Amino acid sequence: MTVPDLMTPFSTALDFASGRLDPERKTTERTLGDMRGMYLADDDPARAGEVVYRVYEIPVPATNSNLASSTTVIEPGKVGDEYFMTKGHYHARRDRAEIYFGLSGTGMLVMATEDGETHVEEMSPGTVAYVPGWWGHRTVNTGSEPFIFFAAYPADAGYDYGTIEREGFPVIVVERDGKPQVVENPRYGSG
Amino acid sequence: MTVPDLMTPFSTALDFASGRLDPERKTTERTLGDMRGMYLADDDPARAGEVVYRVYEIPVPATNSNLASSTTVIEPGKVGDEYFMTKGHYHARRDRAEIYFGLSGTGMLVMATEDGETHVEEMSPGTVAYVPGWWGHRTVNTGSEPFIFFAAYPADAGYDYGTIEREGFPVIVVERDGKPQVVENPRYGSG
Repeated sequence: MTVPDLMTPFSTALDFASGRLDPERKTTERTLGDMRGMYLADDDPARAGEVVYRVYEIPVPATNSNLASSTTVIEPGKVGDEYFMTKGHYHARRDRAEIYFGLSGTGMLVMATEDGETHVEEMSPGTVAYVPGWWGHRTVNTGSEPFIFFAAYPADAGYDYGTIEREGFPVIVVERDGKPQVVENPRYGSG
Repeated sequence: MTVPDLMTPFSTALDFASGRLDPERKTTERTLGDMRGMYLADDDPARAGEVVYRVYEIPVPATNSNLASSTTVIEPGKVGDEYFMTKGHYHARRDRAEIYFGLSGTGMLVMATEDGETHVEEMSPGTVAYVPGWWGHRTVNTGSEPFIFFAAYPADAGYDYGTIEREGFPVIVVERDGKPQVVENPRYGSG
């Protein structure tokens, strides 16, 4: 039996403490400047260079039989009273699911459908969270150390960042009396 | 937009030390008796009840957009000089890939194609190993403590245990001078 597209198995070393991968294949860094307009508080140009999070990916060919994976490291921090978070996205192929696995630090996985339904899962080391298809997802660092998690998803899922950039998410996560609280996003849908 | 099969997100707590999941949804236990004929040494009926490994699964509907996941805990032990291992399988849908993530202990991920090509990845905590489609895969505990890893795979991958039960794997992992060594399986293909 000959398989024309037979891939060779490989492995990558993940450092639990830093979330970094070795070898490092594809890294995305997002600063506050990259996220202009995504936080409720006014943007402060002086903070534009601050790194909010980094994603270290293990890319594979984008078929529906392959699985892509990554670690994400969200720094601790806030903009106003809103915690540092990822941009968040829907999958371009909406039905594709994703698995999140908490490795270090604490946070929240905030999910929403395009109908405005929301669901939040708290994450800490060992939390395995399931993001079913059709749920947009964003992660938030609600702690005082980096929040690090591993994610696996069908390699053909693709990214739709635009929907959340335009509409926002129905809820945001803010600090109230020193604790994280999920509250309605007053700007949701105002596009 | 209405999605008829919209699933509700959920999470599961994974204990890094034991590999157990909470809630525990589906557990498979394999004893030496369940693996009769899979080790080179003669089967010892007195050891038939010995647990070799347990798999704790997070099941989801078996579509190609969902991802199933599990933790596997392989006990330390040997049959003759052959280390405790899983039965191993090909995916029923051969092209489906799988991601393995080492959590505790040390082992080897032994892979083979049906053409007899082999590939071995050593695993320790933090190893993220990629099993591409078409590669049968089996894990082996080469250490003195439980070898625990997390796995994620397309929920429609399915299991073909029969091919390895009939043919064996081209290589086996044995202890030589106190160290694990990958050697040819003298019974491979003998059916």
